[in-house]
Amino acid sequence: MIRVTVWNEFVHEKSNAKCKELYPFGMHKAIADFLSEEEDIVVHTATLDDEECGITEEVLKNTDVLIWWGHAAHHKVPDEVAVRVRDAVHNGMGFIALHSAHNSKPFKMLLGTAGNLSWRESKDFERLWTITHAHPITADVPDYIELEMEETYAEPFGIPEPDELLFIGWYSGGEVFRSGCTFKRNNGKIFYFQPGHETFPTYYNEHIQKVIKNAVRYVTPVYRSEKIEFPNIPKTNKE
Amino acid sequence: MIRVTVWNEFVHEKSNAKCKELYPFGMHKAIADFLSEEEDIVVHTATLDDEECGITEEVLKNTDVLIWWGHAAHHKVPDEVAVRVRDAVHNGMGFIALHSAHNSKPFKMLLGTAGNLSWRESKDFERLWTITHAHPITADVPDYIELEMEETYAEPFGIPEPDELLFIGWYSGGEVFRSGCTFKRNNGKIFYFQPGHETFPTYYNEHIQKVIKNAVRYVTPVYRSEKIEFPNIPKTNKE
Amino acid sequence: MIRVTVWNEFVHEKSNAKCKELYPFGMHKAIADFLSEEEDIVVHTATLDDEECGITEEVLKNTDVLIWWGHAAHHKVPDEVAVRVRDAVHNGMGFIALHSAHNSKPFKMLLGTAGNLSWRESKDFERLWTITHAHPITADVPDYIELEMEETYAEPFGIPEPDELLFIGWYSGGEVFRSGCTFKRNNGKIFYFQPGHETFPTYYNEHIQKVIKNAVRYVTPVYRSEKIEFPNIPKTNKE
Amino acid sequence: MIRVTVWNEFVHEKSNAKCKELYPFGMHKAIADFLSEEEDIVVHTATLDDEECGITEEVLKNTDVLIWWGHAAHHKVPDEVAVRVRDAVHNGMGFIALHSAHNSKPFKMLLGTAGNLSWRESKDFERLWTITHAHPITADVPDYIELEMEETYAEPFGIPEPDELLFIGWYSGGEVFRSGCTFKRNNGKIFYFQPGHETFPTYYNEHIQKVIKNAVRYVTPVYRSEKIEFPNIPKTNKE
Repeated sequence: MIRVTVWNEFVHEKSNAKCKELYPFGMHKAIADFLSEEEDIVVHTATLDDEECGITEEVLKNTDVLIWWGHAAHHKVPDEVAVRVRDAVHNGMGFIALHSAHNSKPFKMLLGTAGNLSWRESKDFERLWTITHAHPITADVPDYIELEMEETYAEPFGIPEPDELLFIGWYSGGEVFRSGCTFKRNNGKIFYFQPGHETFPTYYNEHIQKVIKNAVRYVTPVYRSEKIEFPNIPKTNKE
Repeated sequence: MIRVTVWNEFVHEKSNAKCKELYPFGMHKAIADFLSEEEDIVVHTATLDDEECGITEEVLKNTDVLIWWGHAAHHKVPDEVAVRVRDAVHNGMGFIALHSAHNSKPFKMLLGTAGNLSWRESKDFERLWTITHAHPITADVPDYIELEMEETYAEPFGIPEPDELLFIGWYSGGEVFRSGCTFKRNNGKIFYFQPGHETFPTYYNEHIQKVIKNAVRYVTPVYRSEKIEFPNIPKTNKE
Repeated sequence: MIRVTVWNEFVHEKSNAKCKELYPFGMHKAIADFLSEEEDIVVHTATLDDEECGITEEVLKNTDVLIWWGHAAHHKVPDEVAVRVRDAVHNGMGFIALHSAHNSKPFKMLLGTAGNLSWRESKDFERLWTITHAHPITADVPDYIELEMEETYAEPFGIPEPDELLFIGWYSGGEVFRSGCTFKRNNGKIFYFQPGHETFPTYYNEHIQKVIKNAVRYVTPVYRSEKIEFPNIPKTNKE
Repeated sequence: MIRVTVWNEFVHEKSNAKCKELYPFGMHKAIADFLSEEEDIVVHTATLDDEECGITEEVLKNTDVLIWWGHAAHHKVPDEVAVRVRDAVHNGMGFIALHSAHNSKPFKMLLGTAGNLSWRESKDFERLWTITHAHPITADVPDYIELEMEETYAEPFGIPEPDELLFIGWYSGGEVFRSGCTFKRNNGKIFYFQPGHETFPTYYNEHIQKVIKNAVRYVTPVYRSEKIEFPNIPKTNKE
């Protein structure tokens, strides 16, 4: 069983009527719901309202893949929680950053870049192009996914050259964006996925759900260490 | 001085009225003209009409950067000419593949992929996004370049993950494309640049010209070997 | 079931006494034997002695992963066979190049580089370092594998920057080598693995066997296309 | 002129007799001395003894390339100084991390990994192999550099897959290490270079000096921004 923790700041759902209507129990619940349909995935959720954001050492020890949605409250996540997430990824935990998590503390700590981008709050139509079908994350995903409305994200996107670029977004307003990217940091795999503005029903789209399900399996740890150490090795040469 | 050879199959200019009108002396002449404005660049041209395509060992030995435009006559370039180009790149010569050269023999030999893409002959508007300004090829290039009409190229584009993705094209018809990419093969640097359909005045655009000028300098050899060898080395350990 | 074809030129085993003694039925048979221990792998072999090298369209259509060992007879493999292999990899077939296959036609066609390296026929001790444990190919592989004798391969190795560098070889004579590297070409995954000189019992080493078993699973196709096409797409924008 | 700041914690030179003898005025002074031989480089130095480590906003604004040597006192560098360095690199400043700076705060912040490695304090002989000659950092550097004594660094080295791997170290004790690696973070270029243990005369080696001189030029900013912003862009599509 792959143990997934879906973390959501859970702010817009309480303050924005449109968001509340779309996701009455929070986006984390909507994401947990479709992941729970899978026989090999078991889901736990946590939010900013939980003590220590619900991201304790104990929770991370029992999490194979952490999904993160944040936007308005990045600064309310304590540094020590972000460091805890970063270290868990180094040890092997998978990490999926959704939408505005490009600017979250754990994502920026893990990438080492500013995570900046240009954007326009709009109701642009997005066509999300699949750059390759030959990747576990794009299995059974169509050539492109159409989203009637998404917030426009635009280049330049402040990330290191991704290991693999899997999706590029096309927006009706004239922008492009590297919408699906993989990275590795020590033992951990990372996937960034752009769709998911809080006032649009993106997480109910079956193809978006398929990508996230695939990504969960892809970033599941291959190897998990207790901690990243700096061993002093004895002289090992044959003599 | 950087010695550039601009190669063009020079076919459409003789058969297509629109192309002939735009480029009466051939696209190679238009490209050579703007490169010749630069004090550090000296330009030579060659076409399919020349013996051995004008790409002899002698020419390549005296070429620092080879620019290639081909489309209708890829199959008319003999394999041995393509191999000659490939080997010169391995030794260090820079190579710039323009537009439909994605399907040329030298480009496919150098990348090792099929070079395939989807396309639509259209009069779509293209907005070409600069993904980073922190690269010699994008120096003094605006955030995006607008081309009133370009042929639509679309993903998936059959290339290996580029070393650096520098431009992404947005087309009014709804497509995206990795329009500017760098690669290395042995000692040689390669730049692929998508704009330049034969019936549009793309090579007269000042920003497109700037990108090509920058790219010439970027792919200029750092190190050029006589030939790529397989040396049998003597035992070298200190004892 | 993963359908593996092990191809071996099968030359040294017939001409070199030491090689014959070590691999009386050929290295392909030794490799097929340990792969056949796995429940999810079914193995077929082919050599230069077979018609069309045993690499017909029919064979490739029924091959998920092709393993290639060649050295003395690279030039005896017809170009059309190498092209057939290259195209099958583009369509999604996995490809594992062993040892001196760095200079084989299919490997060089797929990489686009000269595949050159320095070497010394020696009886150097090799310690093969695992660069990361967090990869399916290095699962259950120790921190390093020791080989009492291997042919020394040395840098520079004429390959593009690998997608992933998984092993680096240390030789007692003072050389290093990028011994385990992954690449992608269109839909196909490629793994190069350096150990396996014909006069040493390398393929009987349990750890070397483990790496090759892991690699077979890793390069198994995620997505296989009929052929790589250049589709002319209709205008697809919403209007 | 390229404005270089050489930062050194300057600790071992005051406490270790061997180090003091080798570098009586500190390693920063030795590095500054050979860089100052170059006509296009002007050098400034700073240490832990300076207020704010000598790394103020003003200093960074006037620094094109920051070289960093740290080991025993990583923890004495305040977080805000490390953040200042990280942000300057994002804006375009070049950064060269020497030897044990693999574990410095700025390096780990920029890479997003743990920066861990294995090591053995030894007097091993190191042969540092040049992986490619076709890079500005390896220009006029021999095929390998021999260092009579260096501290042994060993894989796994906790870094992301480098953009370019330029050097691999071979140690007489049986280890290998990715000794020269380039990375990019937003507008800034980074070079990590392994040689330089404090009790060996490494920085007096002419080839090591050549690599560092080359690296200074390579990581010099191509483009420097005031700060990394998140612009809200107006609707830009043509209509």
